[in-house]
Order: sequence, then structure tokens, then C-alpha cells
Amino acid sequence: MLFKVVFLGTAGTIPSADRNTSAIFVQHSNYRFLFDCGEGAQRQIMSAKLGFRNLDNVFITHMHTDHFIGAFGLIETLSLNGRKKELNFYTPNPEMLKNLFEIFGYDNLDYPIIVKKAKDGDEISFRGFKIVVFKTEHIVPSVGYALIENDVRKFEKEKALALGIPPGPIYAKLKSGESIEWEGELINPEMVLGELKKGRRLVYTGDTRPCERTIEVAMNADLLIHDASFSEEMKEWAIESGHSTAKEAGEVAKKANVKKLILTHISARYSKDPEILLNEAKEVFENVEIAEDLMKFDIQQSW
Amino acid sequence: MLFKVVFLGTAGTIPSADRNTSAIFVQHSNYRFLFDCGEGAQRQIMSAKLGFRNLDNVFITHMHTDHFIGAFGLIETLSLNGRKKELNFYTPNPEMLKNLFEIFGYDNLDYPIIVKKAKDGDEISFRGFKIVVFKTEHIVPSVGYALIENDVRKFEKEKALALGIPPGPIYAKLKSGESIEWEGELINPEMVLGELKKGRRLVYTGDTRPCERTIEVAMNADLLIHDASFSEEMKEWAIESGHSTAKEAGEVAKKANVKKLILTHISARYSKDPEILLNEAKEVFENVEIAEDLMKFDIQQSW
Repeated sequence: MLFKVVFLGTAGTIPSADRNTSAIFVQHSNYRFLFDCGEGAQRQIMSAKLGFRNLDNVFITHMHTDHFIGAFGLIETLSLNGRKKELNFYTPNPEMLKNLFEIFGYDNLDYPIIVKKAKDGDEISFRGFKIVVFKTEHIVPSVGYALIENDVRKFEKEKALALGIPPGPIYAKLKSGESIEWEGELINPEMVLGELKKGRRLVYTGDTRPCERTIEVAMNADLLIHDASFSEEMKEWAIESGHSTAKEAGEVAKKANVKKLILTHISARYSKDPEILLNEAKEVFENVEIAEDLMKFDIQQSW
Repeated sequence: MLFKVVFLGTAGTIPSADRNTSAIFVQHSNYRFLFDCGEGAQRQIMSAKLGFRNLDNVFITHMHTDHFIGAFGLIETLSLNGRKKELNFYTPNPEMLKNLFEIFGYDNLDYPIIVKKAKDGDEISFRGFKIVVFKTEHIVPSVGYALIENDVRKFEKEKALALGIPPGPIYAKLKSGESIEWEGELINPEMVLGELKKGRRLVYTGDTRPCERTIEVAMNADLLIHDASFSEEMKEWAIESGHSTAKEAGEVAKKANVKKLILTHISARYSKDPEILLNEAKEVFENVEIAEDLMKFDIQQSW
């Protein structure tokens, strides 16, 4: 099942010629999401040839301009493209976004725009996975988002055949978790399902200090995308501005035992030489990379 | 005296991978201006290596997102860069912009942001030129802007020498238009100045139907940058949406007898093949070009 991430913007607050402000395109099966939507996001979607189809949900981590101002252009482009389907925005501060949308007259568009509050512990369910909201620690109300696949148990045909059940519509019932009766015997799904396979997990923090809640949600994640605005030398400023250093991001990744860490929200001061961030993170966590604009990452099924 | 234009965004409403939304960088002597500031404008300034120094005035033609939403990122980048100098915004709808700036908390920045109403006939004076506001015809309140150099008369040293006046501080007085007495004779500046040289003139319409006021302001202009969103085939829609066709832009250029016409606000439907617009405009006005992102144009002194 397709599960990929495309980085649309990887700059920290101030964009550069090479890095757009924050936005991540996430595709799972036929669903497409935006995690943050900074200035220029719609144009990056075009540059990456991703298209807007099935993009129905935009998850904003916090209401700083570089994480949401691209929403306006996106909304208007979709409107001019004749969109009719509703578009959902999740944000920890829905009042501000609603207020802005009202000033822009978005209650008069041809499609509904719904603004929803995202708060710690919220789960939004989709077919085969859910998106979980977790609280982060920035200088304004902020959250991160995790896309967590459902754990699955595969239907094992051989087991059914061994029980004397021939292929047929009855298999679908067992696959869906229903118990059935076959030749007088009760067959429950347990008897024909394989072992539990863990679903994949993607975690995006947005702007944040390192925090326990991230570690909790990112435990054993396949991919953690973490704020790494600064190097250690700027740690004091990272604390003051509610960001993380690359090394701190590495520490979170290590504690959460994630498979892969990608650093983003790269401050303009490192835009020419982000190696310093990479090296500092590598001191504590080996499997780490620096995000770049338009970089793609496939989250592989491990089984 | 340097007088140049750099196109930062040339797309019509919807950007494309090749064209950013509307923004034009204008430099005259040491002054720098933005005429419109669509999404991504600050990044285009970076890409064109123009810098933000002496950028103190942003002229917005109308309050459609693709013409002003880049202001927010620009304002915050300047703030993070430690700006202290005030930044002026001119717009036909200052209430909306003030309202938005208040929601974004821009009254608490380290530098003042001033929003001024731009209305037909307003003149903002700078050293050696003025910026003139003229009413245009779009579907919301809209204006265009003209940068008009003062006409000048050059000091002719030979004439002063012929009158027996030797070089010295007295020349500066004559140059500045003061009359002086030299060996008992009244010397007025007329006697030592050359003929009147017309100042250069740049006119930018923003989004508009062709209109008389543009022709009036653009009369004999060196450069007219005109809305040319559509081809003739889309004329009905151009009328309905308050835009111009390329041919109509050519007609305005012809009536105003401008030296050069550059077409902008190119609809995404022509982004791969803008030749159709160019050809239609050429039917009525020969010296025409299609704007492209990061294209530079020097407005030459003709004398």
C-alpha cells in the first residue's frame, strides 16, 4: 500500500532560494494530506507534479505564518479549478483561521471549508489508518500529527483449507472478522488469521522543543520528521524560540526507537551547509537525513 | 540613473511551476519598490538576488490574494532580519489590510507598518520622481501605479563659461534653480540650462479592463506593463472577470503611444504557449513582449 512523503518546504521561518517554508505532502493509499501549508505550498505541489485530487485535509501544526499562509492561495486555486468537495483544516487555533477565512470571504466559495480544532489525543479515522493529534511545545499553541496504520492480521487461506472450508463468499466474512458456522462447527477469525502485523507510523512534530509526548507517539515509528532548526551552538535561542537543535531531534529519535529520522525546518543560517546539523544529530542517532525541498520518501512495509 | 524593473511573478491568479503570482520589483536610483506582492514574492526577491535594502514602499493594486498575500511572509522576514525602518503599504482598500495586520499582531513588531489609502490622482513624491495612483477597472476597488520622473534641464557649463562665470560654488546655486548676481549682472538659471528633458515613465496597471485613465497616465510612457490575462477567444470571460485580452492591452499601448509594452498576469491556460497572446497583441502594437518570471528590463534614458 502506497505510503509516501514529499517535502514541499523545509526552511525554518525564513525561506531561501533553495528552501520553501514548511509544508509536507503525505500520501497514503488514495488519500492525500498536507501537514502544514506555508507560503508557496501550492506552487511546490505543482512543481512536484502531485496534483490536488483527493487532497481533502490540511493539518496545521500552529498558527505561525510560515506554516499556514499558503492555505489562501491553495483554497482559491481549488475554487477556480471548480472544486465542489469540502476541504477540512485542522489547527490548534481554529478561531484565528476562521476569522481570517471570513475576512477573505471563504464562506461564499462554491465548496465548503471546514475548520476543526486539533487537540491532544484527537484521532481522525480513515480507511486503514488514523491521524492522531499530539501536543507539542512551541511558543504558541501547537500540535504534531501522526499517521498510524491499523495493525492487521492477514487471512491465511491454507488454514481455512486445512479446516475444510472451500474458497467462497464465506472467506470474506472471516476476513472481515466475523465468526461463521461451517458444517456445525464454530469457526472464529482467529483460526484463519496470521500473526498481528504492526501498521506503519509516520510522525511530524512541526515546530517544537523536544518533548515526552513526541517520544510517546513516535515510539517505534517508521519515520519521524522533527524540527531541527538549529545547531547546538544556538541551543539557547532554540529554547527561547521554542525550537529544537538537530542533536535534540536525534535524542528524541533514539528514545522513541524510530527507524528513520528526517530533520526539517532548517534555519537559513545553515541553508548552504546543513552538514553541521546532520553531524550533530548523527552523534546520537545514526539513521538520519536532512530534508530537502521536493525530496520524496517512501515508507516501506517491513513485512 | 538606474531605473529597472524585475518581474517576480507573472501568473494570472493561479501560479504554475513556471510563473509565480503577481509581483514586480521596481528600482529607481537608490529606491526600491514592490508593485503588488503575491504569494512567494519574498522568495523570488531572494532568487533574483535583489535584497530588501531600501525597500520601504509596497504598492498593492487591489486586494485579491494573488496580489498581496506575500506581504505577510515579507513583513515577518524583515522583522526577523532586525528591521527598524517603517514599511509603507498603499492599497485602495486599507481597511481590509489593516484588519488582517491586526489579526497577525503586526502592531507589535519592532518596526512600524503603515497602511495608506491609494486613490486616483494621489502623488507620492520621491527625490527626482513621483509615484502617481490612477483608477483602473477591476471587479473590486483597484488602482494602477505610475512612476514618473521629474522633467529636468541640464546645467550647461559652456553657457556659464561664455557668460564669464568661472566654475565654483556658484554653479551649484544655478543648478538648483537659484538666480545669482555676477559682476553686477543678474544671471537666472534659464540662461545656463539646456532644453527641457522629459523624465522617464513606467506604468503598471494591475488587473483591469482597458480604460481611458490608463491611456491618459501612460501617454508616451517608456514602459507600460498591462494585464493580458486572456486571448481574444476568452474576451467574454475577460470582461466578466475584469481583465484584459492581450489585444486590448496592445490597443491601450497604441493609443497611449508608449515605447514598450510588456504583457503580464498570464493565465495558466497559456503558460506553456504564451505566443498566442504575443501574436494577438502584435496585430495592434509591435513593440511588445510577454513577461517571464525573473525577467529584467532596464528603462533607458533616451537623451
